[in-house]
Amino acid sequence: MQTRSAETRAKIIQAAQDLFSQTGYESASVAEICTRAGISKGAFYHHFPSKQSVFLELLSDWLKGIDLGLEALRSGRTGNEQSLVRMAEILPAVIRAAEGRLPIFLEFWVHSARDKELWNTAIAPYQRYREYFRMVVEEMDPQGAIDPARKETAALAVMSLAIGLLLQGVVAPGATDWGAAGRESIRMVLEGMTRRSS
Amino acid sequence: MQTRSAETRAKIIQAAQDLFSQTGYESASVAEICTRAGISKGAFYHHFPSKQSVFLELLSDWLKGIDLGLEALRSGRTGNEQSLVRMAEILPAVIRAAEGRLPIFLEFWVHSARDKELWNTAIAPYQRYREYFRMVVEEMDPQGAIDPARKETAALAVMSLAIGLLLQGVVAPGATDWGAAGRESIRMVLEGMTRRSS
Repeated sequence: MQTRSAETRAKIIQAAQDLFSQTGYESASVAEICTRAGISKGAFYHHFPSKQSVFLELLSDWLKGIDLGLEALRSGRTGNEQSLVRMAEILPAVIRAAEGRLPIFLEFWVHSARDKELWNTAIAPYQRYREYFRMVVEEMDPQGAIDPARKETAALAVMSLAIGLLLQGVVAPGATDWGAAGRESIRMVLEGMTRRSS
Repeated sequence: MQTRSAETRAKIIQAAQDLFSQTGYESASVAEICTRAGISKGAFYHHFPSKQSVFLELLSDWLKGIDLGLEALRSGRTGNEQSLVRMAEILPAVIRAAEGRLPIFLEFWVHSARDKELWNTAIAPYQRYREYFRMVVEEMDPQGAIDPARKETAALAVMSLAIGLLLQGVVAPGATDWGAAGRESIRMVLEGMTRRSS
């Protein structure tokens, strides 16, 4: 029974993801998710209280993958510029992990600007990543030789580049190697940050 | 009569903007726009063939403002790094001009990834701005001293920063001075770009 239950859960998540991608999160209904998954509404509500909760699980899966990747990069850090350059390597992985889901995440993010409860869910990982970038930039400057305002700008620039590149990847997935573009852009920001102090 | 017609048109645009902001583009209906504007459906369809066409007018107004600003910055350019740093000054203006409309534009952009016709409308200005940034970066290097790949990266980075900062401005409008952040980030990218060749 446990196995069958897990199977049903996986079917719901897959069906929801396909539907959200095709018609958008907003216009998708629980009934449509059930039809596509080949299950009853009762089975759906046994697993999830709402359409939103399925979405949050999709989001959480993606974020877990990002967190694991960032953790791996940090544990292998060398305490200098190298760590952020290596961190840039994660962008291709982040984009791959979200394949086919990015438009949904984005739609959800926009929607969350209008909904207090969603807002808290959407903003928490964002705050965490900003903090992470701040920390990595700080570790690149163990002597405290770089102006704090420049480090703050660099951390926000890295965050902004990641968001901007992800968004372009949504609209034009195949037009550019977004992962490589991310790596090179982040490298350039860091070279700019350390320019005056090196 | 001409004046009254223009008034009705303005009322429709204002009502649509308010409604799109509050409930989202997707869920807003022409009937609701009419109620809010205090006009009949007949009057609406006299001015616009569809909800989408009202949206496109909102989008086009915003883009016209950006184009004028970019044009002004280019005509005052000095042919060196200064021109792109000054271009960064436009970000605050772009954000102000879109005040209250950014979530709508974003929702529309996401939506356009699923709709061929909208896609062409959404992608055209994007391509134009990418081309613009390429040109400005090129003008910063009249001697051709900088590696073309570095210039391409810098142009894409500036575009990505602008998009990433706009998107963060949507979600957290008051948390940061996004215009100032844009100016400083772009400056840092440019310092990174010219680092090896200077």
